[in-house]
This record gives sequence, C-alpha cells and structure tokens, in this order.
Amino acid sequence: MARLAGVSRATVSYVLNNTSAVRISEPTRRRVHEAAKELGYVPHAAARSLRAGHSRMVLMPAPRVPVGPLYSRFFDELQWSLSRLDYTVVQYGGVGLHGDEAARAWAELRPVAVIVPDEGLGPKGVAVLKRSGARAVVTMGPEHVEGAHALVMDHQEVGRAAGAHLLDRGRRRLGVVVPEARGLDVFSRPRLAGVRRAVRGTDATVTELPLAYEEEAAARLAARWRSLGLDAVFAYNDEYAMLLMRALQDEGIDVPGETALLGADDLVLGRLLRPRLSTVHLRLPAGRDLAELVDRVVRDPTAVPETHEVLGSRVVHRESS
Amino acid sequence: MARLAGVSRATVSYVLNNTSAVRISEPTRRRVHEAAKELGYVPHAAARSLRAGHSRMVLMPAPRVPVGPLYSRFFDELQWSLSRLDYTVVQYGGVGLHGDEAARAWAELRPVAVIVPDEGLGPKGVAVLKRSGARAVVTMGPEHVEGAHALVMDHQEVGRAAGAHLLDRGRRRLGVVVPEARGLDVFSRPRLAGVRRAVRGTDATVTELPLAYEEEAAARLAARWRSLGLDAVFAYNDEYAMLLMRALQDEGIDVPGETALLGADDLVLGRLLRPRLSTVHLRLPAGRDLAELVDRVVRDPTAVPETHEVLGSRVVHRESS
Repeated sequence: MARLAGVSRATVSYVLNNTSAVRISEPTRRRVHEAAKELGYVPHAAARSLRAGHSRMVLMPAPRVPVGPLYSRFFDELQWSLSRLDYTVVQYGGVGLHGDEAARAWAELRPVAVIVPDEGLGPKGVAVLKRSGARAVVTMGPEHVEGAHALVMDHQEVGRAAGAHLLDRGRRRLGVVVPEARGLDVFSRPRLAGVRRAVRGTDATVTELPLAYEEEAAARLAARWRSLGLDAVFAYNDEYAMLLMRALQDEGIDVPGETALLGADDLVLGRLLRPRLSTVHLRLPAGRDLAELVDRVVRDPTAVPETHEVLGSRVVHRESS
Repeated sequence: MARLAGVSRATVSYVLNNTSAVRISEPTRRRVHEAAKELGYVPHAAARSLRAGHSRMVLMPAPRVPVGPLYSRFFDELQWSLSRLDYTVVQYGGVGLHGDEAARAWAELRPVAVIVPDEGLGPKGVAVLKRSGARAVVTMGPEHVEGAHALVMDHQEVGRAAGAHLLDRGRRRLGVVVPEARGLDVFSRPRLAGVRRAVRGTDATVTELPLAYEEEAAARLAARWRSLGLDAVFAYNDEYAMLLMRALQDEGIDVPGETALLGADDLVLGRLLRPRLSTVHLRLPAGRDLAELVDRVVRDPTAVPETHEVLGSRVVHRESS
C-alpha cells in the first residue's frame, strides 16, 4: 500500500490509524486512503481502538420503550450531526440488561462516548464506563446522575402543563390515563405526578385511569365513564387520546361538552380527529446541540459535568378541551 | 483474580476469553466470573474478538426509513431471541452511507453476523463483510443478493393483494397513493407495481397519486378528487389512509359509496375510524426464526445461502372498501 500511495509505511500506518500526534498533509492522507480503497483494505476498528486507546464510537442504548415519531426525528438529527463530526453511532440492544449491569456490557465495546436515552444508569455504571475509556457519558433522564453530563427530561412538567390547562378551561374532576404497556411508566408516572402538582391548593381532584392500548379496553372504560364523574381527561399522549375519544363518542359522550380531552406529542393525527385534539407539544433537545456537547466533552473529558433542562412543554389548544 | 477465584491464571484467561478449545467445568467458570465481578473487571470486546478471531456481535444497520409499529415488534423479538443465544445486537447508524460503502464501515466493527433490513447491499459488500470475518450475512430486501442468505420481502405482493381486493369489490378506476417522504419509495414503488399487475388483463386503470404526509396536501388532493374520476384508492398504509379519509370526508365524498379506501399494516387506528378501515395485514418473519437462522450460519458458515419468502399479505375487509 505504501508503494501504491508513494509514501513510507509509517505514514500509511499514521494515516490509517488516524494518529493525531503526527502532522500529515491532506493530499498525502487522501493518497493513502485511495490506495487503501483500491486494495480493498478494511481497517479493524477494534485493533485501531486498542492502539489509539479509544475509538470514535458513540454508543447509545436503544430506548426500552417503542419510540414515537418525535424521538425518531431527534435520533436522526443526532446521528447525522455526530457523523459529520466523524463519530460512528451504534445503538446497543438492551433487552434483558438493566442499570449498571448494562453499563458493563456497553463498556466491553470501548465506546468513546455513551448517551443513555432513559433512566436506569447509576453512578457505579458511569464509573465503569469511564474506567473503560468512555470520555463522555450523557444521560437523558428525569434527574442528574453523578459523574455524567445530564440532559434533564422533566416529564412532570408535561403533566403540570396539561393539568394547568384543564383547570384554566374550568374543569375540576380530572382523569389521567396511565398506559398499561410495559416500560411506559417511566414517562406516565411523572406525568401523573405533574397533574397532581398542578391541582395542589385547588378543589380539583385527580383520578388515575389505567388503560391498555386496545379498542376493547377503551370501550370498557367508556362504558363506566359517567359513574366516574369526570369532566376532563389527560390521555397520556395523542394515540391514547384518539383511542379514548372514539370510545367516548361511541358511548354518546360529548367531547369537549361533557368531557374535555387532551393528548400530548402534537402528532398529525390529532388534527385529523373531530373535534380536533388539544395536545401538549413537546420539544426534544436539538440533535446538533447534543452532538456538539459530546464532541466537546470527548476533547476535554475533565470538564465539569453540565446539567441542561430540556423538553419544553407547551399546550396547543384546539377543539377537544 | 486467579488467587481470588482459586484457579490458575491460564484458567482465568480461558474463561474470560470464552475459549472453546479448553474444557472447563461450570463451577470453575462461575468462580472466575464472580471474582471478575468483585474486582470490577470489564472484558474488552475488541481484544477478545482479536484473539478469538470473531465476536458475538450481530450488526444490524438501522433502517433508513422511520420504522412503524410492525417493524418495532419484529425487531424487539429478534433482539430478545439473539440475546438468549448469547449474541449482542448493535444497530449501526447508517446516515450518509450507502451500499458497499456502508458495508466497509460495518466491517470495521468485525461483527460475526450482519442482518441488513433493507436493500442496497450488493455482492461486493457481502464479500467485504465476509473477508472481515462476518460468518453470516442475511438480507431482508426485495431480492436475493449473491453470497448472502435472503429473507425476500415481496412488497409487490402487498400491492397485488390490494388491487385484487378492490377489483373484487367491483371497482375499476384505482388510485394508488405514493408517499413523497424520502426513502419510502423502496416500499411504495413495488406496491404500485403490484397493483398494476393485479389489473393486467382487465379493463381497470391505475392512477399514481403522490402525497406528502400533511393535512394541507391531502386537502388539495381531495379538492380535485372528482376530476380524477376514481372509484377506489389504495392509500399505501393505514396512516396515509387515515389522512386521506379525513380529507375526502371534509370534501363531502362518501367512503366507501363514492370511493373505496384501503390501507395496509392493520394498525389499531384503522379500527377507530368511521367507516372502519379495510387494510392489508402484513406478516413479518418471526424474530425467533431469524435468530436461529443467524446462529445456524455462524456455526456453519459454509452452509449454502438460503432464500426464504417472507411477508405474508392478507386483506382484512372492514367498512371502507
């Protein structure tokens, strides 16, 4: 390869291993890469990371809950931004692994950075990752974890905004849908707590409504709706709101006359319903900002962990509330 | 660690590197693992794969299109099944990489198996992966790729089933929605071709209807609907069908009286619409079957590549068609 590129073997090695200690001109780099390509050479990421001491891999455990369109868009942008900064994003399948146990598994791949999209990682897990060479550990959970940079996603605030809106609309007996689907309680619990916080100091009440994402379950809930005596419901998100709206309408219950209905996520489908669905619009952090935070910390791993409040909540008032 | 476990250093190394050449009893293995855990030892997957010659990593590039609930369920089951067979699944972020170029990037991680969930990988890419140590390469695309095992996903058949159903219902002027969203044409083109195949030899016509997933775009299409003279439409999937149904109803067009409407995917939301949505139910391969195929090929990489037809299509007739 050195002969084909017209450079020394040491230069080939420096270029292919991306050594930053040695300064090599851009044209030379290009010549080496072209020669490598022509010869069908595939560098070994593992070997390269062993030599360099770290990789360019950003590991991101796959979220443990089914992802919605909001998260997909955020993740696409994050991935794109990291690839422009020359990182490779791998999503680690986390089935059956939890908390610090999961961290040990991630550490085996020797990522240079780890972004954890939900809660569960503790200070021990952060330490394991750092000992294994991760320079940046960023969590996206409800609270800060010792040793890690934190994007704090405050789902209580989603519930608080929902509760405050329904109170504003003159409602006093609020139902809150809590999905029965495995894993969603990391979001639904704080949302419920947020609604409770909103009504504190008022005469309003909050009733928890467990619900499976199935037509029959919604019909059963609608059938006993009038006995619950509710005048409003925060339905967790737009998809559950759609499910419940249909069941209430089939039962002859007027939305919003008899019961106000509020979703969350601001999906297109909410505007297709009649009445049009009111919703809590969520703003996830910009993928580009997060990519830049990761890159900054990789370059200076001694930086003091930062905590950023993200996830803006804003109610979009349409016709259902 | 050897002292803590009460075994020789060689035994520790054999156990931690999972060497199969040496027979070591289960209690001894357990003692070594416990000692490793107590000492906070994290094995280095890279080093381990260098020594062993291959890893337990199954690499799966992330699909290039937003995934729906169907794919999520399939992927969860696949991941679960592979983890039970002691594989680690990593999803590789494929932004900006295409075809054989992508294969080179995947090869850097030295996965023992690669599952490609969409098309784009060619025979060259398969060869690069195999040269880099991948024992199993499985593609899930419209056709077989040389050197790889193939789960053939025939989206033409989805369109053919849709077209045949609408003909059965006495319709003759069929519209087919083709989403404008980036990336979806790998599914929408063959589905359109399938509808065309269904009408071959009849007096029915097929009209292509490009559509963005936006309320305004659907309203524009509905406004010129009567000038198109269609009596049926296959709306690509249930979400586009919902979007179009609302726009047609707002325009005073009766579904199914004036226009029959058919979705695909059989999502819950289809049953929540009025009229209830007819749909093409798709059956993805079982994650467990795919996991077992991967494991079988990893154990015997010389096995002749298999081709399996997957993706069953079956029309569920409700009220909209």
